[in-house]
Amino acid sequence: MTNGKVYLVGAGPGDIEYLTVKAYKLLANAAVLIYDALVNEQLLELVTDDCLKVFVGKRGGLPSTPQSEINQLLVKYCQEGKLVIRLKSGDPFIFGRCMSEIKTLKAAGCDFEVIPGLSSALAAPLLAGIPLTDAVMSRCFAVLSAHQPDNLDWEALSRLDTLVFLMGGQHLSEIVHQLIRYGKNKFTTVAVIRKAGTTEQQVWTGTLSTIVEQVSNVRLSPSIIVIGGVVGLRRFSENM
Amino acid sequence: MTNGKVYLVGAGPGDIEYLTVKAYKLLANAAVLIYDALVNEQLLELVTDDCLKVFVGKRGGLPSTPQSEINQLLVKYCQEGKLVIRLKSGDPFIFGRCMSEIKTLKAAGCDFEVIPGLSSALAAPLLAGIPLTDAVMSRCFAVLSAHQPDNLDWEALSRLDTLVFLMGGQHLSEIVHQLIRYGKNKFTTVAVIRKAGTTEQQVWTGTLSTIVEQVSNVRLSPSIIVIGGVVGLRRFSENM
Repeated sequence: MTNGKVYLVGAGPGDIEYLTVKAYKLLANAAVLIYDALVNEQLLELVTDDCLKVFVGKRGGLPSTPQSEINQLLVKYCQEGKLVIRLKSGDPFIFGRCMSEIKTLKAAGCDFEVIPGLSSALAAPLLAGIPLTDAVMSRCFAVLSAHQPDNLDWEALSRLDTLVFLMGGQHLSEIVHQLIRYGKNKFTTVAVIRKAGTTEQQVWTGTLSTIVEQVSNVRLSPSIIVIGGVVGLRRFSENM
Repeated sequence: MTNGKVYLVGAGPGDIEYLTVKAYKLLANAAVLIYDALVNEQLLELVTDDCLKVFVGKRGGLPSTPQSEINQLLVKYCQEGKLVIRLKSGDPFIFGRCMSEIKTLKAAGCDFEVIPGLSSALAAPLLAGIPLTDAVMSRCFAVLSAHQPDNLDWEALSRLDTLVFLMGGQHLSEIVHQLIRYGKNKFTTVAVIRKAGTTEQQVWTGTLSTIVEQVSNVRLSPSIIVIGGVVGLRRFSENM
């Protein structure tokens, strides 16, 4: 029997074309695929018919599989000598909550490897025509989650050139409120990018003053929010 | 004659395995490949024998091709009806200096598309075993270039959880000096990652107090510098 190995693989923003060559090859060789709701269904077709597909996300109102159970599944299949892929949307090390899985694998003596993927934090702005850096306008960008807005240092954040919020949709008005409160110019441009890199991609652009009103009737999850002058560069880089 | 198109393609950190599927396919179909010194030589073997390879980087002490000339090359080959690839290391929209090329293409009415790639800003830390986010230790990371350290808001930067400097090698002591000056704890962990994702990858870890001394005899270009508590997570995620 060969030794098992677990690959924690970044799936990128969704489309197969944005997978890495390495992830593509690994999927074709996987004996077990463990995935959750954020992963694009297209990608499930890249494994062979023999591959065991284990869904560990939320489905039909039922809760997702507890993390401890996912960890044990990874160890179990690895110890059976299998090539196991734990597929994560985006990049596994950008808000991918890998550390618990990694610690468990390491403690159990399982072989593992983390494979980078395109993070939506960078790919969504690009696919919407927005460069996160610019020689004049953006020498720095910060990436953050807006899940717990109270824990963030809004004063420091308001002084950075460009901000990218993941999972920020439902906290948009709080984000705008805090940035203006700490001195960010209310005419700073903002983009809200929904379902980036898919055929359903939508982009709204406005300013800190206008954006909340503009998207008030839209279901924003999953969205990426970009705040900064670089949003204005979109008019050049959109090929229209 | 078919219509030409220019693809500004991210090559990722270097290895073919870290290309996207889309970039891989485009390279196989390219009629013209325009590339510079930062791109891994391996990637040049993915084009067909018929593909015209145009090197526009520095070679043997000679200056690189002026940007205006690169812009005109892109337009020329596109107007000849060719599939042109402008290959950039990492991601084209992260310090990729694309905007001049894009504006020229747009002004000339040339069709173009920007293809994301794995940015070294995220991939280098991952390949060195460092997650840039963590539920407790890093709710935010900032990516920046250290080319012009005088222009940065060090006070704001010193308050962020995690910082990633690209092209920071020769400015390491200035970075350390500024962060400590603005109140960053001198025991904050630091990693210097050289030639990430290649067989020559090297990683040094220390603290703001020790790192300058640790790498004083090393040629650091090209390096990525990661500053923050997440560097300490490397001991878990390194599969050793």
